[in-house]
Amino acid sequence: YGAEGGRNSGRIFADYAIFKGKAALSVAPVLPSFSKTDSGYTKVDRRGVIMLTFRPAIGERKYDSEKKQLFALSVTEVGSFISLGPGDSCEFFHDPLMQSRDAGQVRKSLSIKPHTDGYFISLTVANNILKTNERLTVPVSTAEFAVMRAAFSFALPHIMGWAHSTNQVSDDNNVGRDSL
Amino acid sequence: YGAEGGRNSGRIFADYAIFKGKAALSVAPVLPSFSKTDSGYTKVDRRGVIMLTFRPAIGERKYDSEKKQLFALSVTEVGSFISLGPGDSCEFFHDPLMQSRDAGQVRKSLSIKPHTDGYFISLTVANNILKTNERLTVPVSTAEFAVMRAAFSFALPHIMGWAHSTNQVSDDNNVGRDSL
Amino acid sequence: YGAEGGRNSGRIFADYAIFKGKAALSVAPVLPSFSKTDSGYTKVDRRGVIMLTFRPAIGERKYDSEKKQLFALSVTEVGSFISLGPGDSCEFFHDPLMQSRDAGQVRKSLSIKPHTDGYFISLTVANNILKTNERLTVPVSTAEFAVMRAAFSFALPHIMGWAHSTNQVSDDNNVGRDSL
Amino acid sequence: YGAEGGRNSGRIFADYAIFKGKAALSVAPVLPSFSKTDSGYTKVDRRGVIMLTFRPAIGERKYDSEKKQLFALSVTEVGSFISLGPGDSCEFFHDPLMQSRDAGQVRKSLSIKPHTDGYFISLTVANNILKTNERLTVPVSTAEFAVMRAAFSFALPHIMGWAHSTNQVSDDNNVGRDSL
Repeated sequence: YGAEGGRNSGRIFADYAIFKGKAALSVAPVLPSFSKTDSGYTKVDRRGVIMLTFRPAIGERKYDSEKKQLFALSVTEVGSFISLGPGDSCEFFHDPLMQSRDAGQVRKSLSIKPHTDGYFISLTVANNILKTNERLTVPVSTAEFAVMRAAFSFALPHIMGWAHSTNQVSDDNNVGRDSL
Repeated sequence: YGAEGGRNSGRIFADYAIFKGKAALSVAPVLPSFSKTDSGYTKVDRRGVIMLTFRPAIGERKYDSEKKQLFALSVTEVGSFISLGPGDSCEFFHDPLMQSRDAGQVRKSLSIKPHTDGYFISLTVANNILKTNERLTVPVSTAEFAVMRAAFSFALPHIMGWAHSTNQVSDDNNVGRDSL
Repeated sequence: YGAEGGRNSGRIFADYAIFKGKAALSVAPVLPSFSKTDSGYTKVDRRGVIMLTFRPAIGERKYDSEKKQLFALSVTEVGSFISLGPGDSCEFFHDPLMQSRDAGQVRKSLSIKPHTDGYFISLTVANNILKTNERLTVPVSTAEFAVMRAAFSFALPHIMGWAHSTNQVSDDNNVGRDSL
Repeated sequence: YGAEGGRNSGRIFADYAIFKGKAALSVAPVLPSFSKTDSGYTKVDRRGVIMLTFRPAIGERKYDSEKKQLFALSVTEVGSFISLGPGDSCEFFHDPLMQSRDAGQVRKSLSIKPHTDGYFISLTVANNILKTNERLTVPVSTAEFAVMRAAFSFALPHIMGWAHSTNQVSDDNNVGRDSL
């Protein structure tokens, strides 16, 4: 079962999406990747994330996927998210070009701010190269936030690789079931 | 193992039921269904729910299954349920005929209201076609509510499909174990 | 793999035990049992429990297994246990001979009462037939209680059968993996 | 699949590491070991732990693995850790030579103390034999602590063996999948 097509058929995709007047927000876990060490162990190569996808509204319950903006919550940012108390707010800053010569040219910030029933989750993307500055805001109800909190808490040990290291699930690199 | 009979033998059913003077309430998760995309991925086709089944009492610890009434809690309603604080209440409204020409003819509402030791969970079904209006109420103790909250929290990533997308379990559509 | 010896080799036993001056307390989950319905489905036949085992001390860190006393926490009692707030107490009553002609002859009660750092967990067994009345008390620290609360919360969907019905684990009755 | 090399290839290692100015701290679960009883059952032989590894800084984001110090949190200490409230502190003492003739010669203590945004986690190792006394402190942010709390809570039933006894995962001793 090494063929890529064969692998795809086993991948299952599930997001949690909320559709509001000006934008939609969908969230989904992205699992870590693994690699083999010389001594034969498998270790986490790159930690997973919770991917947030914002799409602006372009009509009655229609959203523009062409203009989608992504924000990948790291393990520690997920920790921050799930420990938000009522009335708390937080903000995360990412530079998607950090490792390149264009470092600092694009700045993304995700802010989570309380409102009467839930939170506003806003993504701002300031792009100095394209001279653009976009802001997408989705009001998230208390119930929707509770779903995210519970789902992110569930996903956390998976994106950290702990669900794999405790033998609960198999990994992405075809480690045989026998050895689990 | 494609035969329906064969598949049934693998389905496991487990509910949590509480039996009270005027009605019984049983709750159980219903898993999402999945479908294959053209690109070979599997995605959630329809999200799962937590199914609530009310049965009116017709004698000493006997309940009438013929007159049962169902209410399917969506993912977001489960989020609302599990984040209820002490003393909080909430109410959900469903129209089972929403997509049909009889939209609005049947209205179901589920209300959760605090009492001294726990909550009253009531289902009202107003049916304009049959000219009926039924209300079934089950008093749920704090301990029983704690079981529901814990069980619903456990079930949430399963009915969302996240337990499947993180590779923890296989899906309903016979995706081979090899590809997990 | 139908031979009983073969099955035993797959059963894994793990308890959490705390050893104190006058008695030891060990706790472990007991899984539900399942049966097949005529329509080919598998359903929970008997819910699981959390089994509490008390053993009186008979010397320096030695405990008398001959005089052990058991108390099986039901699903709803586990709900009560895990939702105990600081300073709360609770008490459960069982009649192990309830369904027999000796109903009422043996009364077991388990009480959980707060102290400065944690809880006292006491089991009283009043046996009218043997004219005995035993009481075993184990002081449980806040940290030990936190372990129990977390472990019981984890075990709850397993003893309810929800971990099985959501396909996360196989069941006790040899339902083939293919059908999962 | 009995060869040790073959087994290694199935082991997956995942830690959660935080890198600060004076030291780095990485945490990872260590699963319990199991053994077979005469009656054919498998039981926990030695409970698992959460292993904390401290490494002192020796330059810009460089840490000295030669001088690493370990502290293995027991199941009950993990219970203490995950139930720390805001502003709480705790301290654990270990004697790594407890069972030997050098008992008392090496004392390790791990302290967790609140600061404005999170906790200081400090490991002190006083070695009377080597006449050394080392102290490594890592400031842990509220978000990082939330990750640890969630990850430790997830890992707890695994290091206790309850994830194994409830059939959720296979064990370390090659119990065949058939018997699960």
